Amino acid sequence: MSLDRDGIRDAVAAVRSGDPRALGRLISWIENASPALPMIMKELAPDTGRAHMVGLTGPPGAGKSTTATSLVRALRARGQRVGILAVDPSSPFSGGALLGDRVRMQEHALDQDVYIRSMATRGHLGGLAVATPQALRAFDAARFDTVIVETVGVGQSELEIAQTADTILVLLAPGMGDGIQAAKAGILEIGDIFVVNKSDRDGAQSLVRELRTMISLADRGPQDWKPPIVSTVAYENRGIADLLDAIDRFWASQMESGRADERRVARARREVESLALAKVRAQFRLNGEAELDDLAKAVSRGELDPYAAADRVVLHR
Amino acid sequence: MSLDRDGIRDAVAAVRSGDPRALGRLISWIENASPALPMIMKELAPDTGRAHMVGLTGPPGAGKSTTATSLVRALRARGQRVGILAVDPSSPFSGGALLGDRVRMQEHALDQDVYIRSMATRGHLGGLAVATPQALRAFDAARFDTVIVETVGVGQSELEIAQTADTILVLLAPGMGDGIQAAKAGILEIGDIFVVNKSDRDGAQSLVRELRTMISLADRGPQDWKPPIVSTVAYENRGIADLLDAIDRFWASQMESGRADERRVARARREVESLALAKVRAQFRLNGEAELDDLAKAVSRGELDPYAAADRVVLHR
Repeated sequence: MSLDRDGIRDAVAAVRSGDPRALGRLISWIENASPALPMIMKELAPDTGRAHMVGLTGPPGAGKSTTATSLVRALRARGQRVGILAVDPSSPFSGGALLGDRVRMQEHALDQDVYIRSMATRGHLGGLAVATPQALRAFDAARFDTVIVETVGVGQSELEIAQTADTILVLLAPGMGDGIQAAKAGILEIGDIFVVNKSDRDGAQSLVRELRTMISLADRGPQDWKPPIVSTVAYENRGIADLLDAIDRFWASQMESGRADERRVARARREVESLALAKVRAQFRLNGEAELDDLAKAVSRGELDPYAAADRVVLHR
Repeated sequence: MSLDRDGIRDAVAAVRSGDPRALGRLISWIENASPALPMIMKELAPDTGRAHMVGLTGPPGAGKSTTATSLVRALRARGQRVGILAVDPSSPFSGGALLGDRVRMQEHALDQDVYIRSMATRGHLGGLAVATPQALRAFDAARFDTVIVETVGVGQSELEIAQTADTILVLLAPGMGDGIQAAKAGILEIGDIFVVNKSDRDGAQSLVRELRTMISLADRGPQDWKPPIVSTVAYENRGIADLLDAIDRFWASQMESGRADERRVARARREVESLALAKVRAQFRLNGEAELDDLAKAVSRGELDPYAAADRVVLHR
């Protein structure tokens, strides 16, 4: 896609006005790494930094979508404009939007103040590490007050995406071999608020106890915030007010302590670094496609070691 | 860790002789990105390219460890030297070796021809994308005939690791909400051989049927190999001979068609590119730590857009 200056100006104005369709178009450009992005993002930069980004992660089946939808409802009741960005880093292949998306949209189909969107990246340079913060920036510029970044699954990529948020919710549910899996995935270390969803099920109380112990043992670094564990039954809206209350308290304490800013700077830093690396990688490919192939052949045959090959790539870019 | 020339020569000789302890030490250096690696890898390059790398991926609980251990036993019976590299990309935080490791090692504790090792990387530049192929290279140089690369979980990183292998096994088990999860994770597209483990359980046959349909629908690109589905009960060693037979057939067909070489070149290419990017990233940090921080602050305040910031980073490295 290429846009002239007028096209870019119109697109920027539409996003700024809060038009969900303009936002959706911009996110598609982000997914596809449109060459117009640098100009668009330049124009939008002054309009960013206001939205509260809430990350929502946890194993499949814990009820992330239901919880996100309940949070949207509760935040709408406060008059907020609310977005959901559902990121699926689990597949570099299948791409495309999540099935549940359109279903979820229906409840809010006529509401201009709710926008639910899923995102995948198709072989995009820099991948979701570049695309996710850009998409959040887009929601922000489109005057959304809260954006929930929902990830699918629990891998390293999911954690990285969750960490682009201001406030990180970790969702678990009883009966999923939860505790140990959670520890493995490193989510004990990053959660600001833990949610035990489906808390009407057997094992919910023991999961809460187990979680409490594991959080106290996790290496969370120095911090004054003690992450609460909130019990919910999201599909019945139970516990959502408590969850919202915990989010409010956390966010207020982050703002007051200056940690909110620290996180945002760290997020911007990762974003800038990822973009810079994507740029360099594109240079490798542009200038050295044939050379890279030759080097790879030599390495695969044992004629050259990969470090020496990498040196040549960096030197010749 | 720093090594002088003699130390490097000794380490290289010990790895080449097949000494498991020397291999273990080398893998630790790889985990910690030792500055001696370029020299070591240069020396070892001519000794690589022989081992058959078998990737083993699938959701937690499918029985990957048990299956890997059974495969080791079967390959040992053929007189092969066999390694397992268990990679845990799910946590950028907790690091360290898997608990099960030492337990598994016991069966083969006195066998110099079996080496089981898990690997994590602690904030390592380039991460597992750099470390995994290096570790495989180390096993290869240490004269292991087959190396099983076992990954934990199903995320994008796990898929990338599985793709460093010559032959990719995807393991599933009944009753895990399997089919749909598998499709999401993109493993239908990359599996060369599918294994339905715990096939004595309810739902095994319907999982096989479902899998067959889903594989036929998956976008696997043009290829002549039709991935078989092997049923196993790994903890009883059932079906392991069939699995080994499928692996043999696949590997023979790959060698014959030249696809084995193609994959190895592709793997080397990704490795070289990852190393080159890690190098550039280190340059960013070395030369521009303070600048990167300033740029990140400006971006987080909306004073600068991330693309303009990335341009400055690349320009000034």
